Amino acid sequence: MRKPRLAITMGDVNGVGPEILVKALSHAEPWEWCRPVIIGGRAAFEWARARYANCREAEVVEDVSLCEEGLYLMEGGFSGPPVQPGKMDAEAGRCAVEWVKFAVRLAQRQKVDGIVTCPINKECVHRAGISCSGHTDLIAEMTGSRDYRMCLFTDRMRIVHNTAHLSLRDAIDQVKTERITASIRIGDEALRRMGLETPRIAVAGLNPHAGEAGAFGREELEEILPAIQECQRIGIDCSGPHPPDTLFGKMRDGEFDMVIAMYHDQGHIPLKLIAMDEGVNVTLGIPLVRTSVDHGTAYDIAGKGIAREQSLLAAIRFAAQLV
Amino acid sequence: MRKPRLAITMGDVNGVGPEILVKALSHAEPWEWCRPVIIGGRAAFEWARARYANCREAEVVEDVSLCEEGLYLMEGGFSGPPVQPGKMDAEAGRCAVEWVKFAVRLAQRQKVDGIVTCPINKECVHRAGISCSGHTDLIAEMTGSRDYRMCLFTDRMRIVHNTAHLSLRDAIDQVKTERITASIRIGDEALRRMGLETPRIAVAGLNPHAGEAGAFGREELEEILPAIQECQRIGIDCSGPHPPDTLFGKMRDGEFDMVIAMYHDQGHIPLKLIAMDEGVNVTLGIPLVRTSVDHGTAYDIAGKGIAREQSLLAAIRFAAQLV
Repeated sequence: MRKPRLAITMGDVNGVGPEILVKALSHAEPWEWCRPVIIGGRAAFEWARARYANCREAEVVEDVSLCEEGLYLMEGGFSGPPVQPGKMDAEAGRCAVEWVKFAVRLAQRQKVDGIVTCPINKECVHRAGISCSGHTDLIAEMTGSRDYRMCLFTDRMRIVHNTAHLSLRDAIDQVKTERITASIRIGDEALRRMGLETPRIAVAGLNPHAGEAGAFGREELEEILPAIQECQRIGIDCSGPHPPDTLFGKMRDGEFDMVIAMYHDQGHIPLKLIAMDEGVNVTLGIPLVRTSVDHGTAYDIAGKGIAREQSLLAAIRFAAQLV
Repeated sequence: MRKPRLAITMGDVNGVGPEILVKALSHAEPWEWCRPVIIGGRAAFEWARARYANCREAEVVEDVSLCEEGLYLMEGGFSGPPVQPGKMDAEAGRCAVEWVKFAVRLAQRQKVDGIVTCPINKECVHRAGISCSGHTDLIAEMTGSRDYRMCLFTDRMRIVHNTAHLSLRDAIDQVKTERITASIRIGDEALRRMGLETPRIAVAGLNPHAGEAGAFGREELEEILPAIQECQRIGIDCSGPHPPDTLFGKMRDGEFDMVIAMYHDQGHIPLKLIAMDEGVNVTLGIPLVRTSVDHGTAYDIAGKGIAREQSLLAAIRFAAQLV
């Protein structure tokens, strides 16, 4: 089996993207996992390569089909502005978005097997006059995906969020059997694609103590439990609703392979607490493989050489596993 | 200054209470922190002492005023049923509640300086025909307290919950300026009592990313921020609303002394994830000092000698600090 070809988008050239990219690719592992193709500015790549890492040279190509082993770079028609670390530059925002779009089109034409994204800055993208609330929504829109889920993965913790960027009140309104069923199925499918034969999925409750049999909140009984039963009926090994406050420790200790979280912070709080640098953002429920670092552009440390590449390395690895 | 006299209630004799009690009191530290008085059954104490630890003998007394250095035990009129580890026994539930009531009365008459509680089992208490949703509510009721808060403390993490055992929907309804202001003030007062001169308090947002300037949820702008400003005005060092998903790591790393959590799981998820055994449950906003272990009766491991006493030791230490 050939190693998967992964498009790695550079993100905002004034953020930490270029430096974590060259740092990650100076490790040996990514080359064992995949054939990487950078989608970004050549100048920014060279700028970072000269400063931060012993990364091999990249060959700039127009046609990804020609890429074999080795490091390739495609600009997709956007060479990017000169690097000015930490500066919010509309042109940097515009190019970052264009590189993502270019990568998505490559994936849609099956020229690459998956996409790994470095961070973009929402505010900066807005300044370029582009309406875009982030990678996930952009990619979902381009691929016509409606039932997608934002997930956070580490080696031991894999979390599917039933909803993401909604107010907590609106997130509760989405704690509905049909949606939860889809969340469980999407998670199960991803784990099987990653090679787990019988993934053990735990579904979190919404309320404290998972509602304590209806004493505080009935969503567990009326919405979550029916979803679990429906998924069990079709052969998925899922359980719950579990009290949220002890569930993530159980997953960390190996009792479960995945947790279905009912809202953004239910999953983000535990994951960011114990895996600040190694978390990977995975979008499931879209017709292509896409992972991302789990941090932002970090303008405050961009260009200082201290940004860590661990999250990007993990993102590359998970993307290769998901292909 | 004399060491504070602390009443330590035994909890359910068939749970892990008796064994963690003798284990904790066989350490040297509690004797440096306080003068302990066990409120529980003499037979259960002797049962555990014979099995699990080199705990000194206890003198059974009727009047706590006579207690000096040494270990004393008061039964408060309830000697407790014979120990049957792991068995749900209505009489054990009844005695556990009576011992708590006895301890509260001692504290109200200033015969003891504070109370530390071992776990009771709610279901077991119900079987005794007693309506009681737990220690906290019982003590609040006995002391006529309305504005009390359930808190979780470890050495590095101290969390005040704006609400506790409510459905998430109802908890959101309590994200109100007046209530949050009280939460901050109660937390600040406790930290000062513990010896921190200028406690740094961080107030969590309710929504993902703390609402991102109103993009998903307006509670941060309309309810939480005014509470923070009000507390700053009266000289409390508080900040926020902070994005909830990165805040607890910051507290663990020493950036803050306390977090005001907007709902039960926002605080419980991170604390239980990283301090499963060492968390202490503290009730603030009642007119007496009360701490508790942060776990239940654990019938499944009761009598096996494997229950860990760390949480009880920490509960004794925090109670002594709060006095």
